[in-house]
Amino acid sequence: IKVNGFPCKEEANVTEADFFFSGLANPGVINNSVGSVVTGANVEKIPGLNTLGVSLARIDYEPGGLNPPHTHPRATEIIFVLDGELDVGFITTSNKLISESVKKGDIFVFPKGLVHFQKNNGEKPASVIAGFNSQLPGTQSIAATLFTSTPPVPNNVLTKAFQIGTKEVDKIKNKLAPKKN
Amino acid sequence: IKVNGFPCKEEANVTEADFFFSGLANPGVINNSVGSVVTGANVEKIPGLNTLGVSLARIDYEPGGLNPPHTHPRATEIIFVLDGELDVGFITTSNKLISESVKKGDIFVFPKGLVHFQKNNGEKPASVIAGFNSQLPGTQSIAATLFTSTPPVPNNVLTKAFQIGTKEVDKIKNKLAPKKN
Amino acid sequence: IKVNGFPCKEEANVTEADFFFSGLANPGVINNSVGSVVTGANVEKIPGLNTLGVSLARIDYEPGGLNPPHTHPRATEIIFVLDGELDVGFITTSNKLISESVKKGDIFVFPKGLVHFQKNNGEKPASVIAGFNSQLPGTQSIAATLFTSTPPVPNNVLTKAFQIGTKEVDKIKNKLAPKKN
Amino acid sequence: IKVNGFPCKEEANVTEADFFFSGLANPGVINNSVGSVVTGANVEKIPGLNTLGVSLARIDYEPGGLNPPHTHPRATEIIFVLDGELDVGFITTSNKLISESVKKGDIFVFPKGLVHFQKNNGEKPASVIAGFNSQLPGTQSIAATLFTSTPPVPNNVLTKAFQIGTKEVDKIKNKLAPKKN
Amino acid sequence: IKVNGFPCKEEANVTEADFFFSGLANPGVINNSVGSVVTGANVEKIPGLNTLGVSLARIDYEPGGLNPPHTHPRATEIIFVLDGELDVGFITTSNKLISESVKKGDIFVFPKGLVHFQKNNGEKPASVIAGFNSQLPGTQSIAATLFTSTPPVPNNVLTKAFQIGTKEVDKIKNKLAPKKN
Amino acid sequence: IKVNGFPCKEEANVTEADFFFSGLANPGVINNSVGSVVTGANVEKIPGLNTLGVSLARIDYEPGGLNPPHTHPRATEIIFVLDGELDVGFITTSNKLISESVKKGDIFVFPKGLVHFQKNNGEKPASVIAGFNSQLPGTQSIAATLFTSTPPVPNNVLTKAFQIGTKEVDKIKNKLAPKKN
Repeated sequence: IKVNGFPCKEEANVTEADFFFSGLANPGVINNSVGSVVTGANVEKIPGLNTLGVSLARIDYEPGGLNPPHTHPRATEIIFVLDGELDVGFITTSNKLISESVKKGDIFVFPKGLVHFQKNNGEKPASVIAGFNSQLPGTQSIAATLFTSTPPVPNNVLTKAFQIGTKEVDKIKNKLAPKKN
Repeated sequence: IKVNGFPCKEEANVTEADFFFSGLANPGVINNSVGSVVTGANVEKIPGLNTLGVSLARIDYEPGGLNPPHTHPRATEIIFVLDGELDVGFITTSNKLISESVKKGDIFVFPKGLVHFQKNNGEKPASVIAGFNSQLPGTQSIAATLFTSTPPVPNNVLTKAFQIGTKEVDKIKNKLAPKKN
Repeated sequence: IKVNGFPCKEEANVTEADFFFSGLANPGVINNSVGSVVTGANVEKIPGLNTLGVSLARIDYEPGGLNPPHTHPRATEIIFVLDGELDVGFITTSNKLISESVKKGDIFVFPKGLVHFQKNNGEKPASVIAGFNSQLPGTQSIAATLFTSTPPVPNNVLTKAFQIGTKEVDKIKNKLAPKKN
Repeated sequence: IKVNGFPCKEEANVTEADFFFSGLANPGVINNSVGSVVTGANVEKIPGLNTLGVSLARIDYEPGGLNPPHTHPRATEIIFVLDGELDVGFITTSNKLISESVKKGDIFVFPKGLVHFQKNNGEKPASVIAGFNSQLPGTQSIAATLFTSTPPVPNNVLTKAFQIGTKEVDKIKNKLAPKKN
Repeated sequence: IKVNGFPCKEEANVTEADFFFSGLANPGVINNSVGSVVTGANVEKIPGLNTLGVSLARIDYEPGGLNPPHTHPRATEIIFVLDGELDVGFITTSNKLISESVKKGDIFVFPKGLVHFQKNNGEKPASVIAGFNSQLPGTQSIAATLFTSTPPVPNNVLTKAFQIGTKEVDKIKNKLAPKKN
Repeated sequence: IKVNGFPCKEEANVTEADFFFSGLANPGVINNSVGSVVTGANVEKIPGLNTLGVSLARIDYEPGGLNPPHTHPRATEIIFVLDGELDVGFITTSNKLISESVKKGDIFVFPKGLVHFQKNNGEKPASVIAGFNSQLPGTQSIAATLFTSTPPVPNNVLTKAFQIGTKEVDKIKNKLAPKKN
């Protein structure tokens, strides 16, 4: 039986493994141009979360690393800083930036669906635990969404939206394109 | 008495005016660089919508006009084309562009919280009626959110996110800045 | 995989066709005694609407046509008049009629679950686009529900409810019965 | 402080009286033409129900009494028969009557928003306790809604909906009109 | 097709039996040490309740019988006393006991998720009908949960929680253990 | 303006302070008999969480410390171990204990409304960050709820529920009673 498209076990078959996950214990491996990585602890990893409406994630940042502007279409996010210092912010629907510098032990909230980011401007790595009120919040990283989707967003949408030329659009697309191996 | 921060009238004082709005009858006036304008018919205009979870909007597009990439943090959108032709699309959380050319009478859906856009590539004006499952869906226009907020999003967030230089960031900020009168 | 009893495709198989519908482009064909017809654009027609909580419909009215008193058990309705003029109304749970004359471009709201109707008292056809905050709002047309169900509602329920005789009940049943071919 | 338009007390001021109601202990007094009466036990009587999403009602029926066809716009109803026998039913959105004869101790369900009724065809009084998943389910009695609202539903809506003449409409309106004293 | 893990029939196959239940007509048989028994009328017994968010239960109490302190993780409960007298109560999250003596015809509310109980201190049997805003509210009887689970809750959790010795814990475990036959 | 009984500021007055909290940075001070303390980061501390449906808490444990069996009536909980080792568990509505030993970096889920606990059986202090899908989940500590409420739960409820004598009940009440100063 599946509920929400995820398995719903008979109670007799449910075990502690369905509610446990150790995958956030260590920092994620960062090998990208933005210098941060998100590791999810959601219903895809923890089957027992199905229908329960909550999940966690761990985010790690190199010095200078950025979790670039993005949204979660299905959840509010609340972070707790495990280590380091971060400059964080979100933009309201009235185009007001709400930002703050946070350090180990601090908490900050990014309301449901709004564009937000975290930047490690410190000299040491940083990491946070993030809570979400969804079993699978989803993420749209704005720059990647607009400049690296398959198929691509038409150039005339991007040139008009950002008021830049086709050349600049192509440059950004090239820079953001996933590296081939 | 207020409910949700909006008025909740005594039933005896409720009238037909609380459920009526004529503000979408004519095309909105377009005077911006993107060539489109959105006119809302939500709880701010129609008090009787409070707690009812639905609203409409009208969007008008010049030839070449763009409703630039944006999200609605609190609603799915479903459009009906009143006039003209549009190239529309949204990007999934797997970075796949789902796009379509739509014309008068066609319907297209933009799922909750996902980045989407509509572009009038035709030679005539176009317009749509959009339905939302929220009394006040909210909108974040991506480029404006990132490049014109008050206070501004830090340059080092934007240069890293889009992999461009500070000069290019400033250029986009200047182009997108609201015109002074 | 099915979610809500409707298909939930693997993301790789999702296409633009799952979010598109052209079936409201033209007026519906009216061949009934009330002179109106409703064409739905809901999850039965647009698979991508599954779990998204919104849908549209188009309603067309002959001169004199009536969308007879009915309810939607699962949604609020908000209409935008595409053409013509209509006298519309709903009745509150305090038995107060809230009614209005609306014309091309006007909007009116029918709150969730309440009995409402639209009547074309003009001399030209009329049509509206209706938005709903449900992927499948459902409809109960009151007179048809009470006088044409299968099996029939018992006569002693109808005579007592409307304080009329069995003969009058049978007369209404005959008039409202779907025509045999 | 009010929440949902109803009082939300400071916890220190909450007492057992906010969660208690004795108003369903005795049969309601029936003095109307349909021979039944509904007594609610909802947030208007039990302040502690505010935000809790449930309520009860008691319905009493004379021999021959009818709780005439009606809907609850905000709730499913589930009845438990306290005494007597009833013929009950609801109509689906496919116009199928689902009906049953129930007696003391039996349970029957009327799904959210659908037209339903209960008729005491026995020779003794009957009564039920009804549970609702809303703190204030609301009720629309169909015949009263259509024929006794203030202001009245236009005659040309009713004649067309029920395919009867203005004279028959006026006759029903007169019969159903609340008695003057 | 299953929805929520419970069957969702094709409408053509739905019958009145899906919405009917007679299993609460008679008092449940009490053969346990607490002197009460709960009989549910939920989606496991009434398939038509699936997705409808409401259910009932009947509780019977011997003289002296107790429905011991318990919670419903998914619902508020509202009881109507069918017969007898009961001392009932719940404890708030501020550790305040809200209690009342109720008798035939009285109503009392136990808010969602809070520990509550009913005790028959009278000399005659008592019974109630309980309404819940869930199709399957679930129950955790506190003493049984802590002292009779399989596998058992560790003794050092119970000794510390109740500030009693291992011997007292074992004594309670023995007393509460289901009887073998 | 208040929404949900908590303040809802005009957007112009919202600041970063409404979304920030530093109160979980340091271990809470433990001075009770169970050896653990919970520090909340919810809407009472972070006004911007109002209507957003999520919150965090920090729990600190001495060696041997116990967060005694309790429920959250309005939320699922998901913990991330900051330091140390814990034996954790919850009991299902079928009276099955689901338990696990977790250490630094591990995650465990306690489903909505179910009784659960965490015990530090290690020799060093432990601490966790807990995420909840409610802005104010509420807590009922079972032993305190039953044995220390004001007014007290009647002795005959407790003796019957736990199958112990009045003397043992009084002994537990004395042990658990908040210390006077």
